[in-house]
Amino acid sequence: MPRYVLKLEYKGTNFSGSQKQLSNIRTVQGELEKAFSTLTKQNIRTIFSGRTDAGVHAKGQIVHFDVNSCNIDFTDNKIVYSLNGLLPVDMSIAWIKLSNMDFHAQKSAVGRFYRYKIISRKQRSAFDEDCLFIRENVDVEYINKALSFLIGEHDFSSFKKVKTSNPAKICKIYLAKCHKNNDEILIDIVANRFLYGMVRTIVGTILYLERKSLSPESLKDILKCRNRAKAGPTASPQGLTLMKVIYDKNINMEMAYENIFS
Amino acid sequence: MPRYVLKLEYKGTNFSGSQKQLSNIRTVQGELEKAFSTLTKQNIRTIFSGRTDAGVHAKGQIVHFDVNSCNIDFTDNKIVYSLNGLLPVDMSIAWIKLSNMDFHAQKSAVGRFYRYKIISRKQRSAFDEDCLFIRENVDVEYINKALSFLIGEHDFSSFKKVKTSNPAKICKIYLAKCHKNNDEILIDIVANRFLYGMVRTIVGTILYLERKSLSPESLKDILKCRNRAKAGPTASPQGLTLMKVIYDKNINMEMAYENIFS
Repeated sequence: MPRYVLKLEYKGTNFSGSQKQLSNIRTVQGELEKAFSTLTKQNIRTIFSGRTDAGVHAKGQIVHFDVNSCNIDFTDNKIVYSLNGLLPVDMSIAWIKLSNMDFHAQKSAVGRFYRYKIISRKQRSAFDEDCLFIRENVDVEYINKALSFLIGEHDFSSFKKVKTSNPAKICKIYLAKCHKNNDEILIDIVANRFLYGMVRTIVGTILYLERKSLSPESLKDILKCRNRAKAGPTASPQGLTLMKVIYDKNINMEMAYENIFS
Repeated sequence: MPRYVLKLEYKGTNFSGSQKQLSNIRTVQGELEKAFSTLTKQNIRTIFSGRTDAGVHAKGQIVHFDVNSCNIDFTDNKIVYSLNGLLPVDMSIAWIKLSNMDFHAQKSAVGRFYRYKIISRKQRSAFDEDCLFIRENVDVEYINKALSFLIGEHDFSSFKKVKTSNPAKICKIYLAKCHKNNDEILIDIVANRFLYGMVRTIVGTILYLERKSLSPESLKDILKCRNRAKAGPTASPQGLTLMKVIYDKNINMEMAYENIFS
């Protein structure tokens, strides 16, 4: 009974989130398991590194699955071609590898890297996709100053979705920075874990504070309150992408981040 | 009665081409004129630099239109915001300028620059869009060699859509080159005019010749035949984008091409 691990990409736009639902709605996990079932004639249960919300994208979602009796070698490129042929165009498998049985896509993860993309330009473009479009100028220095107050281990209750039931609110942010390429503004956050809606609430709050000409230090005060009502609005999901899940316990998080495209 | 000129962008995927049709199908021109009519309460007729096929994109389509009695200043950024607010998300206006009455979006054009984008990679990705995905390696040198035979003034009958009725088959290609950025292969062609389906048939034929291990010189022979039946298949429209329309008679075409993003 081998265990496999795969890297999954998806455009979240037309999915009701990653997690399979009992009802008949379109989810990433539902479509993935459907493709597996067509290929293997087995029900294969997949475990994701974490769930992503409706509309959120992934370029580096990690998934593991176990296979019972099955003479398919999932590490064969041709099997991945077949699976990508079966999957809808808005999701794809980059690779599948054999893994140890003690690897767990969710529990073994030590870091997650999310990127929020903003386009700031006078006029929107038909080609603005997977981003939040903002007509106003966005001050990258302001955002970086605000983000700096989040680094380290904190209770992030102020930035969770109100309806979250998970009682653990402590996350450790390793890296949070904003950079600009022309009209594209990227906000990158690497943490050991994230609360539900956390990146989007952080981004929405910083943009709100900037718009209201409040100081970037206000973010520190909001963090301390541990009260969602003190934070700003949740930025829309289409700007958010899960870029990478980090499993190497010994890695320097800054380095893991820098190596994202290598 | 002022004349205006505008730059239009659209993702062709969900349009039945640029040109307005009598029936109720979704076209770029149809949607643009609908937005104008909503804003101005007038029927405004738009003239495009040229039509693009169903599925073909544009980042630099040029359109002119005349306005009768109307106290709207179309060059006001806020009017462009309004129009972009009225337009569907897969099309947008980059700018609107006042123009001379002797300017004509189609007839004044002296050059057009089309780009065909290919992604060549082992596995397709959910983020491969506006491109032709090819699993096999693509030889950029081979493509450049083949393209070199097209430079200059030729009868391009071999590369037109069979059903074209326009009797003028002579086009002058100023520039045709292929370059590669990682797994992205871009084929750029600048000409005074293009026949219907011409770029896509050139691309489809070159890829076909390469696949069949025929020499790039074969493209020269196909060109000389002036017979569509001698050419290869038409590459799919989703890879093609109208990048720029050139109006300056005195410009060096190579320079106009290099300046595309400036």
